[in-house]
Amino acid sequence: MTVSIIPVCGIGEARPGDDVAGMLLGGLESSGMTLADGDVVVVTHKLVSKAEGRVMEIGDDPEARLRVIEQEAAAVLRRRDQLVITETRHGFVCANAGVDRSNAAPGQIVLLPVDPDLSARRIRARLRQATGTAPGVIITDTFGRAWRHGLCDVAIGVAGIPAVVDYRGTPDTFGNILEVTEVALADELAAAADLVMGKARGIPAAVIRGLEYPPGDGSSADLIRNPAEDMFR
Amino acid sequence: MTVSIIPVCGIGEARPGDDVAGMLLGGLESSGMTLADGDVVVVTHKLVSKAEGRVMEIGDDPEARLRVIEQEAAAVLRRRDQLVITETRHGFVCANAGVDRSNAAPGQIVLLPVDPDLSARRIRARLRQATGTAPGVIITDTFGRAWRHGLCDVAIGVAGIPAVVDYRGTPDTFGNILEVTEVALADELAAAADLVMGKARGIPAAVIRGLEYPPGDGSSADLIRNPAEDMFR
Repeated sequence: MTVSIIPVCGIGEARPGDDVAGMLLGGLESSGMTLADGDVVVVTHKLVSKAEGRVMEIGDDPEARLRVIEQEAAAVLRRRDQLVITETRHGFVCANAGVDRSNAAPGQIVLLPVDPDLSARRIRARLRQATGTAPGVIITDTFGRAWRHGLCDVAIGVAGIPAVVDYRGTPDTFGNILEVTEVALADELAAAADLVMGKARGIPAAVIRGLEYPPGDGSSADLIRNPAEDMFR
Repeated sequence: MTVSIIPVCGIGEARPGDDVAGMLLGGLESSGMTLADGDVVVVTHKLVSKAEGRVMEIGDDPEARLRVIEQEAAAVLRRRDQLVITETRHGFVCANAGVDRSNAAPGQIVLLPVDPDLSARRIRARLRQATGTAPGVIITDTFGRAWRHGLCDVAIGVAGIPAVVDYRGTPDTFGNILEVTEVALADELAAAADLVMGKARGIPAAVIRGLEYPPGDGSSADLIRNPAEDMFR
């Protein structure tokens, strides 16, 4: 079954207090789309953070940026020059506690949502209320990785869809039982959506249609490796 | 522009000496598809490895599996119980040097291709020869990640498409110059393709259609973080 990744255009810029679900519905309408059962709506956290007022004015002061990063971080794992690898209060390991200047107005920085899973659940509830259809909702950010060069979008907020799908105990095509196969579905969806959203295109959301996925309601916490079992901290 | 991820069914099992491009073309034909300009063909390394004879018979001997892992690894980064985090000779950091029993015949293990970029280039050349169309080709494996729970497919072989796209110097929607935005396009494509391939479905390939991407011919080496700059080894 073919999976389609459809960019949602015409959403515009969010301001504090804006209704993200309403903006998504406006974008869908201007793209000539209506939500269908089984759809997954992927939205970049930039839109959500701005609507939630998670924006700070710091001007040109690099020290101010560093202070905000330190406020946002629960722990600093590594530091080199201007790059700080942090654990955020959500438990994500990423550069600069997710604090970012790109796609922000000059002098502003954008922080991660306080509770991106809650943000995703709210967006989903509002979409269901407005359309009668409750899609999976994924909020993304762009993270670096250990060992691998280049950034990938990942899920930092999840609602109405499993974040991780556990195939352990499923037979493969040879009848072997798959042993250690927990797939980070929400991260693969985030990466897929980035193929149409892109960094420079100003498209903050996509609909993924035609995906077969098991029922379940995951959260971004499912995507955080237990620190006690993490050999690379 | 909508991106489609189309599973390629009807490919069947590869045996040593099989022609992967021919198998892909057979699968495309039985799926009623022909390659189009700009398509990206994503294929799991299992199919490529089996066709290249990178399969070993080890029966039920767990010690034999461990010996093969150690032969395949260039270095061992961490070890805990049965899990060995290795650097492969290609430079990939992954569990068990990519040696895997799933989707292999009982008693067999499958190794990574010796040179997956070369495998990708050969597949691409054969597809071009047969169809007149030269798609991007990506060979995938399923890797774990530091810090994040769950596995994601990544690119271990790349031909005819950039592996990493460098947006540095591009203005964002506010006219800010994007500073550190190198996107791991080939890894995002691998993750996207896994949405239709899946672990238990026995579908070893997908076509990604409608993607806008810059010209270029990358390799999996582009996706390996310079070990000297890697803070998590």
